[in-house]
Amino acid sequence: MAADRPGEFELIKRFFAPLAKDPGSLGLTDDAAVLKPRPDFDLVLTKDVLAANVHFFAEDAPEAIAAKSLRVNLSDLAAKGATPRGYLLGIALPKGWTADWLERFCKGLAADQAAYDIQLLGGDTIRSSNGLQISITAIGEVPSGHAVRRCGAKAGDILFATGTIGDAAAGLKARLDRGFASTAGLAASGEAHILDRYLLPRPRTRLAPLIVKYANASMDISDGLLSDAGHMASASSSTIQINLESVPLSPALTYLKSAAPDVFFACLNGGDDYEILVSVPEAVSQAFSAAASGLGCPVTAVGRVVDGEGAVKLLDNGVPVSADLQNGFRHF
Amino acid sequence: MAADRPGEFELIKRFFAPLAKDPGSLGLTDDAAVLKPRPDFDLVLTKDVLAANVHFFAEDAPEAIAAKSLRVNLSDLAAKGATPRGYLLGIALPKGWTADWLERFCKGLAADQAAYDIQLLGGDTIRSSNGLQISITAIGEVPSGHAVRRCGAKAGDILFATGTIGDAAAGLKARLDRGFASTAGLAASGEAHILDRYLLPRPRTRLAPLIVKYANASMDISDGLLSDAGHMASASSSTIQINLESVPLSPALTYLKSAAPDVFFACLNGGDDYEILVSVPEAVSQAFSAAASGLGCPVTAVGRVVDGEGAVKLLDNGVPVSADLQNGFRHF
Repeated sequence: MAADRPGEFELIKRFFAPLAKDPGSLGLTDDAAVLKPRPDFDLVLTKDVLAANVHFFAEDAPEAIAAKSLRVNLSDLAAKGATPRGYLLGIALPKGWTADWLERFCKGLAADQAAYDIQLLGGDTIRSSNGLQISITAIGEVPSGHAVRRCGAKAGDILFATGTIGDAAAGLKARLDRGFASTAGLAASGEAHILDRYLLPRPRTRLAPLIVKYANASMDISDGLLSDAGHMASASSSTIQINLESVPLSPALTYLKSAAPDVFFACLNGGDDYEILVSVPEAVSQAFSAAASGLGCPVTAVGRVVDGEGAVKLLDNGVPVSADLQNGFRHF
Repeated sequence: MAADRPGEFELIKRFFAPLAKDPGSLGLTDDAAVLKPRPDFDLVLTKDVLAANVHFFAEDAPEAIAAKSLRVNLSDLAAKGATPRGYLLGIALPKGWTADWLERFCKGLAADQAAYDIQLLGGDTIRSSNGLQISITAIGEVPSGHAVRRCGAKAGDILFATGTIGDAAAGLKARLDRGFASTAGLAASGEAHILDRYLLPRPRTRLAPLIVKYANASMDISDGLLSDAGHMASASSSTIQINLESVPLSPALTYLKSAAPDVFFACLNGGDDYEILVSVPEAVSQAFSAAASGLGCPVTAVGRVVDGEGAVKLLDNGVPVSADLQNGFRHF
């Protein structure tokens, strides 16, 4: 931890040191953390930077901002088949930060550390000349040589998605437009669901060992289902066929699909899902699906990998969706 | 690399992928990097966040901003005895960023990657709603169990410092006050020296193996010589005695010491030195010093560790410096 001003040491001691119980953190009392790698494991490293009013709203609950900042990284780890090990936290505090705010932020981190079995290893705190900004580097472990990449999808694979798609993008619309739910005719429970899904991603950490065991390719869905399927198809030099009618939807998105198709289509590829797209050989696809359900992390078959050159084909009950509509999805 | 907007993939491909030659980076084409730890080595992890007009000036050369952002992290690694292995880069680009600026920034990174033998492993690029902000997580390797901490200093140790002290703090004064050098009567060559020392830290990477071999304790000097010696003394439950007349000074600071003692005293503990403070058993102190010179990284004995309770004692030719002056140093 580098100190920027008198008082940072007090801040580390009071707020951050209680989060750093891993011996490698050295209690946040040194220049750096020391990580002893476990034999026969590779380390998976990911970093996401989140800024107020770009990736979250400055007025969001501090606990939720903390959770989102950590969870978007945990989602990347899970997609690679990695189990969380530790993280480094960079935080630029805005001018008006208060001890109460920081206490609640750290409470959010503590809750997620317990939920996802991860520890704070180190980091840096600066006083931002601008708004709140959070940069987290998360470190996970995967059996040596078994990190699952985007590029391994093979023709014949079944493509699965976790959770439900499009909720967070709808939630963002509802945050930006207070009249969104009533205009769309969405019930209060549906509005609450999509708002929550935007606020708090659910990283599919429990699925990691099954991804290592069964998947040919895997990635998290953060830019939108079709965009990310496109990245996987392109990296794998295959074509991915997605069946629109199979895409898992919450009741709120199912409602929007029929009541407000334009909105639904925009949300389908809106991003911020933090679900996982997994390409699994057909021969083990039922075993994968059953094991995922057994872990309380159900997956849905949304399509198939076919021979081709990196394209995504979207079918609606077997009928290709027009390029115009697909372009609409992409430029949401 | 998470994408925030259309165009980030192009940006990664054009600017960042050429920096990512380590196979663990996966060419920046995946959700995360995969690091295969070397057997019998621990990993040292450090993270520093730098913001425009807090840690550097927005109008500084992009190459220099890149170098400083990486080097402050390399300094932490060196202090722990670690050899650089890789880093993750988080960058929040301000509204008016240009391709030319980013090209020069990446040129600065490329030059330092070659100079310090380190590779880009991954990261994240966002569009800042505010000013430029850079967050780097650097990863180094140290023989298992041999990371050197702050807390191992023992009574009888000789305390060494690398390089020269106070230059960067004087350089910052010169940046903030264009008349500084002429008011202080500093020659143009001296002004150029201190400005350069503020702009570009020199991480003492070459010293890392000697720190592992000889040191009881080590840390980088970033908050100021006396403050950081205080941190080492406190962590080691010892007292550290520093001899003012032995502190290594550049010609510019030597001049200020006699011509403008107040300014000199303020700079002595001004911070941003990015030198290393090393505590070495007396029996091997000559061997350490000779080996450091042999590597082209000379060290100077600045004091000694004595029995005590975490204090720093500053002596000027054997005479204790008054507490008032010491407080002055600390509150620069």
